Amino acid sequence: MKGRIFSGMRPTGSLHIGHLSVIQNWAALQSEYQSYYGIVDQHALTTGYEDGLDFGALIREIALDWLSVGIDPDQSAVFVQSHIKEHAELHLLLSMITPLSWLERVPTYKDQMQQLGKEGGKDIATYGFLGYPLLQAADILVYKANAVPVGEDQIPHIELCREIARRFNHLYGPVFPEPKALIGKVPLLPGVDGRKMSKSYNNTISLTASTAEIKERVQQMVTDPARLRKDDPGHPEVCVVYKFHEVYTPEVAEVEENCRGGKIGCVACKRHLAENLDKLLSPFRERRAAWEEPGKVEQVLEQGAEQARQVTQETMKEVRHVMGLR
Amino acid sequence: MKGRIFSGMRPTGSLHIGHLSVIQNWAALQSEYQSYYGIVDQHALTTGYEDGLDFGALIREIALDWLSVGIDPDQSAVFVQSHIKEHAELHLLLSMITPLSWLERVPTYKDQMQQLGKEGGKDIATYGFLGYPLLQAADILVYKANAVPVGEDQIPHIELCREIARRFNHLYGPVFPEPKALIGKVPLLPGVDGRKMSKSYNNTISLTASTAEIKERVQQMVTDPARLRKDDPGHPEVCVVYKFHEVYTPEVAEVEENCRGGKIGCVACKRHLAENLDKLLSPFRERRAAWEEPGKVEQVLEQGAEQARQVTQETMKEVRHVMGLR
Repeated sequence: MKGRIFSGMRPTGSLHIGHLSVIQNWAALQSEYQSYYGIVDQHALTTGYEDGLDFGALIREIALDWLSVGIDPDQSAVFVQSHIKEHAELHLLLSMITPLSWLERVPTYKDQMQQLGKEGGKDIATYGFLGYPLLQAADILVYKANAVPVGEDQIPHIELCREIARRFNHLYGPVFPEPKALIGKVPLLPGVDGRKMSKSYNNTISLTASTAEIKERVQQMVTDPARLRKDDPGHPEVCVVYKFHEVYTPEVAEVEENCRGGKIGCVACKRHLAENLDKLLSPFRERRAAWEEPGKVEQVLEQGAEQARQVTQETMKEVRHVMGLR
Repeated sequence: MKGRIFSGMRPTGSLHIGHLSVIQNWAALQSEYQSYYGIVDQHALTTGYEDGLDFGALIREIALDWLSVGIDPDQSAVFVQSHIKEHAELHLLLSMITPLSWLERVPTYKDQMQQLGKEGGKDIATYGFLGYPLLQAADILVYKANAVPVGEDQIPHIELCREIARRFNHLYGPVFPEPKALIGKVPLLPGVDGRKMSKSYNNTISLTASTAEIKERVQQMVTDPARLRKDDPGHPEVCVVYKFHEVYTPEVAEVEENCRGGKIGCVACKRHLAENLDKLLSPFRERRAAWEEPGKVEQVLEQGAEQARQVTQETMKEVRHVMGLR
């Protein structure tokens, strides 16, 4: 029997190259685990309920991103959270046993209240925003997931999920496994301007970028400002181009040597990177074109929802039973 | 077009004569309104999640109580909250727009934290307990109820429900009517010992009480302690028997006169009351016997759930649509 994993992403816009390693990690895990990957639209509402999000288009985009990078609907269930009613049901039932203080002490809660609330002007002092890690716990537990592939920033949420599972099992009997975090290595790629890569800074490279767009974005990358002439010795540690070479160029040692030795100019170095990124993204573009045919994504999401429901309905039957509900 | 009402009760044990006027009020409203009466098992978990409640038996008991007093399944939908998944779904979606502070300031929240929590030893400092008036709002709004028959203590909850409806309509467009509270006249009957009528004090008269049980309970009623002899003048205002006569004896003026004038003894006065209560409860006992036949209650709840879902699924389709969910 394979173990189960659950993970999800919010549908808030098309993905960029900074998300790639996460999806590639999911794709690598799907042969080893029974995999459930959710497009978590209800989570997007916790901070975006006032943003007039059109989930129809957003869901399609992110599903295409996943499929093009290699999530295989024959191996993994790909579905939309709000299509599986058991997420909300388990969220409600778990709310009964979850101490308020556990949610109030989640570190991201205060951080985001500060960042999105006080600084970002969003009105997120809501019941739903406080409950967002609980909804995440319900997402995971409703699949009885053994593991959750996540980034390091999510460790406190997985720990909370484990605590909730323990408390439930203690009160009602052993229903839920305690899922462990599978921390994927996520290289930290800066945006082309050197700041954090973020759509709101317009400094990303989209997963759907064409050859020309890749070239343009790489040309915008900030290089060592001390390097005025081609044969000046460069400092790769301050160069955005080099940070991308480190991740995507196998012969990165040579790139570093040529830069430090002033043996290659920034223009040529950028051309080299643009070619490598194009090689990386072009198979995704091709696969994406195939998935873009009308009805294909919808079919994947429908089939994924059916697979998901087979598990979630079983889980909820068990949960209701041990809680005495009929 | 008839207006719609929703109301509910928690299945926490069989009902007593103190609940009678509430159900009679519901029964009176059912010809005037399209009525949805929910047995709110998920609410019972907000304070009872550790109590090992067996909802199977509890639900059957309360349904029999309702049916025997006159809730008519041909006129009203009678159902179990947890059987209608849209309650949990709307609760989750409304949580996104509900300010935490609105829930924290609900007067019953602090009262119950004190009574059940600090004094009662219950661990209810949970996310679900804080969210309980929000779940109530979802219960009401998912039926687009125009009115909610409740007791006076529930007015702050209905006010909160109206505020949530207004905020939702403001953010996403006019979906929900603002339900108004229909305050039913609820005579305050004391327990037979003069304290508050409560199962935990063992001082109630059950709706299912037999003629002999009624007689026994009335005999236990506390009367005017200053009245030692049958012809001493009595003080009806301190007598439990009189408080019941006030509600259930048409010729109450005569009862008062006879008491004050020392013209009737307490034993005879109690016999009179017991007869009246027996006349009141005996038709309920008969109807109850008919409903107790195997499968009948289950059929009512199934039919009620189907009727309920017809409305809740429509409402949720509309809610998801205006929130951009697909």
